[in-house]
Amino acid sequence: MYAPGDVRVEERDKPAIIEPTDAIIRVTSACICGSDLWPWRGLEPLAAEPMAMGHEYVGVVEEIGADIRNIAVGDFVVGSFFASDNTCEICRAGYQSHCVHAVPMGSLGTQAEYLRVPLADGTLVATPTRPTPEQERSLLAASDVLGTGWFAAVAAEAGPGKTVAVVGDGAVGLLGILAAKQLGAERIIAFSRHADRQALARRFGATDIVEERGDEGVARVKELTDGLGAHSTIEAVGTQESMMQAIRATRAGGHVGYVGVSHDVSLDGIELFFSGVHLHGGPAPVRRFLPELVELIMTDRITPGEVFDLTLPIEQAAEGYRAMDERRATKVLLTF
Amino acid sequence: MYAPGDVRVEERDKPAIIEPTDAIIRVTSACICGSDLWPWRGLEPLAAEPMAMGHEYVGVVEEIGADIRNIAVGDFVVGSFFASDNTCEICRAGYQSHCVHAVPMGSLGTQAEYLRVPLADGTLVATPTRPTPEQERSLLAASDVLGTGWFAAVAAEAGPGKTVAVVGDGAVGLLGILAAKQLGAERIIAFSRHADRQALARRFGATDIVEERGDEGVARVKELTDGLGAHSTIEAVGTQESMMQAIRATRAGGHVGYVGVSHDVSLDGIELFFSGVHLHGGPAPVRRFLPELVELIMTDRITPGEVFDLTLPIEQAAEGYRAMDERRATKVLLTF
Repeated sequence: MYAPGDVRVEERDKPAIIEPTDAIIRVTSACICGSDLWPWRGLEPLAAEPMAMGHEYVGVVEEIGADIRNIAVGDFVVGSFFASDNTCEICRAGYQSHCVHAVPMGSLGTQAEYLRVPLADGTLVATPTRPTPEQERSLLAASDVLGTGWFAAVAAEAGPGKTVAVVGDGAVGLLGILAAKQLGAERIIAFSRHADRQALARRFGATDIVEERGDEGVARVKELTDGLGAHSTIEAVGTQESMMQAIRATRAGGHVGYVGVSHDVSLDGIELFFSGVHLHGGPAPVRRFLPELVELIMTDRITPGEVFDLTLPIEQAAEGYRAMDERRATKVLLTF
Repeated sequence: MYAPGDVRVEERDKPAIIEPTDAIIRVTSACICGSDLWPWRGLEPLAAEPMAMGHEYVGVVEEIGADIRNIAVGDFVVGSFFASDNTCEICRAGYQSHCVHAVPMGSLGTQAEYLRVPLADGTLVATPTRPTPEQERSLLAASDVLGTGWFAAVAAEAGPGKTVAVVGDGAVGLLGILAAKQLGAERIIAFSRHADRQALARRFGATDIVEERGDEGVARVKELTDGLGAHSTIEAVGTQESMMQAIRATRAGGHVGYVGVSHDVSLDGIELFFSGVHLHGGPAPVRRFLPELVELIMTDRITPGEVFDLTLPIEQAAEGYRAMDERRATKVLLTF
């Protein structure tokens, strides 16, 4: 990305092993994230000019550093948007996105044919067999949007007997629905006003759709829950309105799992205090969930790859950004 | 309280049963809460003029309504600062302070010889025997400050193997230390710069004292925890500085239990997002913990009554407010 709205596909040097804990992978598919749209829209400064883009990826291991033990050349692998050692105290507690050695993959740029993955032993998870094309799409979703939606559902303590509300009908929100369903939620209320996304929400497990937003949306959730609010709410947008909608839709003692990157959000202390909710979120520790997600995908029990509604060759990446920006696509997959 | 700084002790009508779920208790001791100082200092409007004060109480049941089953005339009882039915879905989930029928006891005023307790069956817990004077002081602490500190420790997930930081060395913070110790915390770091409170903190279980505040205090906690921060932090003040100190002192994936009533606090969304902490708090559902606290107190395993460092007859209530306002006393007990 050279500037907001200016994405170009160019030849760059093939990355090489730098540290003995690195691996080089040949990326077989990557995608564009909702968070890539912030700099595209000029709402977030570029970290470099031009900046390599992307942080979601699957691929085949081409080369490994001298210290690598867990993966081998030829393995099909998926990793998350933070490289992590998976051995520090924070990682062992399940917070790999906050690893003491974390490296944001967005700083390397995964929308590229080849990728250097730092801390590859801790970061990458190999599939037991070569995935089918559909499984590959789902594994790519696991790299971020599924892993993030899953974390939101876990943070919201979605589970048996619970009513889960989901704020946001983008890829993360939709996959939060899938996660809540897998975790055993009894009832899943999706906020959405787009027919195509409503349909996917229902396919992933939503039992109720609410088209109203803000306080009207909150009132509808209260109506559906004996006036109490949801037990668990997933927040997958990151605006002031969506955050307050999530907190207000949740009953006292309930849980809000928030994963929308909070831009210009400010929480009023006294309202939060009297809400009595649990609040947990942030950059999802996707690595915690990857082994389980890979297993679910490789046994065809979940198909999160359905969120990809536009597939383009990498050469047309700029069109992918435009399509997502203009909401013509929910999630764009890039092939190589 | 007639106005900020103007507390008077007057004869009022003896309360009578209104609802069949009421009980009348003869209050044997009550106390002054840090939160009573907000209107005293003119920082919070009075709900009525004059306003009956107080929300902490223990006493003896004098009279019960027709529907009361769980307590009897003559029982020694303790209740919390919210009357709650203890049967609604929110109560059953352990959030009695948010009961769908909750009545704030502060609206009735417990700094009085007699008190009407609504929803008495759900609200009051009877002791198995008549308490000793020291046990009575501790039971009074359980009514709010101990129950609130206990909730903060539970919300912060204090427990075996955990390092717990405690922001605030008032009665609630000090009893949060006692709670963390009882819950099995390995290490307890108390923020305090008052020698007498430091001594009580250590007696209740603090292993480390940090005198620095704000970001300097955070840096000290990081030094004590391999750079990671506490697993669990109790916030028992309610200011912007104390809240940020609590969040910043906590490691990613850790838990902040906040019980200081958040006055003029505003949380920046992006900082909270990247902190990766769990945040939970609000008005403590003290009733959840009362049976356990009564048991611990009546068997002399905990002595939270030690936080009372000034005892006055009710006639000198105004002096009690002044002593707390001027920090000459941590917690004032009123006798009848």
